[in-house]
Amino acid sequence: MLFRWSRPVMQRHAMNFEHQIDRPNPQSMTACALVAEVASGRISALDVAEATIAAIAESEPDVQAFAYFDADLLRAQAVAVDAGESLGKLAGVTVGVKDVIATFDMPTSHNTKRYEGVMTGVDAACVDTLRAAGALIVGKTVTTEFAAGQRGGKTRNPHDLTRTPGGSSSGSAAAVAAGMCAVALGTQTGGSTIRPASFNGIFGWKPTWNAISREGLKVYSLTCDTLGLYAREIGDLQLLADVFDLDPSPEPQSLEGLRIALCRTPVWEATEPSMRDAMARGATYLRGQGAQVVELELPSIFNDLHAAHTIILAREGRSAFLNEVRRCPELHDQFHDMVGNARQITPDQARWAYAHADSCRAAFDEIAQGFDAVMTPSACGEAPVGLAFTGDATMNSLWTLLQVPVVSAPGLTGPNGMPLGLSFVTRRYADRTALVIAGLAAQAILEG
Amino acid sequence: MLFRWSRPVMQRHAMNFEHQIDRPNPQSMTACALVAEVASGRISALDVAEATIAAIAESEPDVQAFAYFDADLLRAQAVAVDAGESLGKLAGVTVGVKDVIATFDMPTSHNTKRYEGVMTGVDAACVDTLRAAGALIVGKTVTTEFAAGQRGGKTRNPHDLTRTPGGSSSGSAAAVAAGMCAVALGTQTGGSTIRPASFNGIFGWKPTWNAISREGLKVYSLTCDTLGLYAREIGDLQLLADVFDLDPSPEPQSLEGLRIALCRTPVWEATEPSMRDAMARGATYLRGQGAQVVELELPSIFNDLHAAHTIILAREGRSAFLNEVRRCPELHDQFHDMVGNARQITPDQARWAYAHADSCRAAFDEIAQGFDAVMTPSACGEAPVGLAFTGDATMNSLWTLLQVPVVSAPGLTGPNGMPLGLSFVTRRYADRTALVIAGLAAQAILEG
Repeated sequence: MLFRWSRPVMQRHAMNFEHQIDRPNPQSMTACALVAEVASGRISALDVAEATIAAIAESEPDVQAFAYFDADLLRAQAVAVDAGESLGKLAGVTVGVKDVIATFDMPTSHNTKRYEGVMTGVDAACVDTLRAAGALIVGKTVTTEFAAGQRGGKTRNPHDLTRTPGGSSSGSAAAVAAGMCAVALGTQTGGSTIRPASFNGIFGWKPTWNAISREGLKVYSLTCDTLGLYAREIGDLQLLADVFDLDPSPEPQSLEGLRIALCRTPVWEATEPSMRDAMARGATYLRGQGAQVVELELPSIFNDLHAAHTIILAREGRSAFLNEVRRCPELHDQFHDMVGNARQITPDQARWAYAHADSCRAAFDEIAQGFDAVMTPSACGEAPVGLAFTGDATMNSLWTLLQVPVVSAPGLTGPNGMPLGLSFVTRRYADRTALVIAGLAAQAILEG
Repeated sequence: MLFRWSRPVMQRHAMNFEHQIDRPNPQSMTACALVAEVASGRISALDVAEATIAAIAESEPDVQAFAYFDADLLRAQAVAVDAGESLGKLAGVTVGVKDVIATFDMPTSHNTKRYEGVMTGVDAACVDTLRAAGALIVGKTVTTEFAAGQRGGKTRNPHDLTRTPGGSSSGSAAAVAAGMCAVALGTQTGGSTIRPASFNGIFGWKPTWNAISREGLKVYSLTCDTLGLYAREIGDLQLLADVFDLDPSPEPQSLEGLRIALCRTPVWEATEPSMRDAMARGATYLRGQGAQVVELELPSIFNDLHAAHTIILAREGRSAFLNEVRRCPELHDQFHDMVGNARQITPDQARWAYAHADSCRAAFDEIAQGFDAVMTPSACGEAPVGLAFTGDATMNSLWTLLQVPVVSAPGLTGPNGMPLGLSFVTRRYADRTALVIAGLAAQAILEG
């Protein structure tokens, strides 16, 4: 796995990232490889930092994934890791951090005027945990405004610079896909982690709600907001699952004999032909490896889950952005509308939405027991052309509201040669099962 | 209402706070009175600050409510309010802020070694909203460690300095009771707002979950953590409900004809005789004002709600304190036990606890429709002697997990002359109904 791009990225890469490699090139390594190389002493954390700085110098002018990057700060972190008494589990692993996640040593600006250059003084809990394990925080990655707004960012899709990388975790997904960091942190309230994973041809993981602390992440909807994680190899996400102490759950060795539900969801009509085809191809590849792929039609109560998601986001956004609107009259209308309850969400509607989501969550716990994982689209289709619209979260919001783990596996492409991800979902706390099955699925796709 | 303590506080006050008043004395004013006096120009915000500084100089040596107080910073805020182009809805209102709630200009130390003197750079959303309305942040008030730990604080109950003010919002409740600020912010995950309200003879309000943003509050349990608010008069909490844009709900003019459920809860056996007597007296006073007080026995599914609360706190605390334990090996065993899952909470137990709480929440929405409010104990009894133990949250945790609004009304006392609060509960988003009924109940108690 060393000295190379993960194959999905390699295959589709729009830029010339192929380096002449005559010694270990930390820039192109996965997190697992970096940890192994740094632990063995073949490279230092400072080597990793220098390679990362070089990669960013090369790719950033095109991709524009970063909202903040300070090469000297990265070097200083690396020097500290190299000077440490012992190496942590993530020593030398490069991490991009979405700019709605607090970092004590870099501004957290939320892609909004009020917070330009504002320092939070403390790290978000997830960043703190990563640093404690020896990770190097590379920089802050571009987000849509407050990870909630329509105001997108400058980031371009590394697979085609004319296309969006998706949002709201635009910069994190693109930075990982372009090799500017090994892994990255995003967030998801609708489809902000899984959709960009699909668009950028990388692995994306939305953990079980609250299984990883979301302290220090901008709040939009407490019910839906979840940390998201990106990597080019599934092993990196599994390494992060170890560091974040996720619960054990079954980790099958192969797809042979697994029961995989193919779930088109009640919003299947939002999918494009490319994704419908990808789902069919995915099913074929899984069957080719001995998996039993069976159709799963969700019970009719799930039909209203999308409506419940819309209501809950409206209700929770109203509280979440009250202070921002009071402080910033010039904030985008979208936030004024949320705070002003422009949708006129009533308490009755909110109570209904919570109760409905709760019922579906319990129902899904039961349904999911009948399968090793549920396979479902990670996006509606390929990344759209243009940067103004970061794509449609319709395929994701139902799983977000269910608070279940979702892992998007890369490898398939659409008619424009752009990546298409397939999501693997399990019941709550079975994140490790979703991770391993997504990894096996990606392998099956590669092997075609 | 001007120039006086609220009567419950006056009646039971352990210290000599009665001032000779020859001009408006902002120190003893309620928030509503401060707003009126400052708006009229009779006093300035700086007058309020000076009176507050004097009150703290007098009371703090006994009560020890503050973890951080800087008189000059308070004066500077007041000067800025006085110099403002227009006066906000809370111009001149003094607010104590629990030391787990972020403030950009004061340390947020969580009563834990790692965060001693640490600045967060930004305000919690609730503090931001209050400042935007012209409030003066007086200082940071004492909390138990991370508002989650058994490690209590130095704060004493103003009604009897040998007794606890309750926890974890110890300093906020005591500071309001002792007149060192008009209102204060706390938090509640079990009974951390309502129990201290009861112990200190003041009004306490735990709003509907997430109806006020909890961004910038230390996370323990996302499912249960809620901002809490304290005041000596119900009108002050209603003023805060306006500023925080709580939903409208019925606001009856009197108790006449209201249907009040008397709910002993499945944990009634945890109450002391003093609280049982207080509930009976409360019912009598309400009936005396024409309310119809009827017994409410919760359905048997509520019997397991306390167990669900314990499981959810254990599961969520495990994620919430992971980074703290990794960073601070010397942290109290309690946090190591949470992070190490010493209770061996399984995913099955966690899924059960969430589903069970969800079911009870929907059931309570139905039940609560049959009443104007539910009356229930705010604590097990009077504040215990000693500071090491901040009291028992058994009577509160069920309502916290139900995510419903709770308002504790003061006025009753126990055999040791210590305050006893009665809680008024409604279904979610009917906070204003709970506030007005708690206010009417407190009045009925005063009129005896």
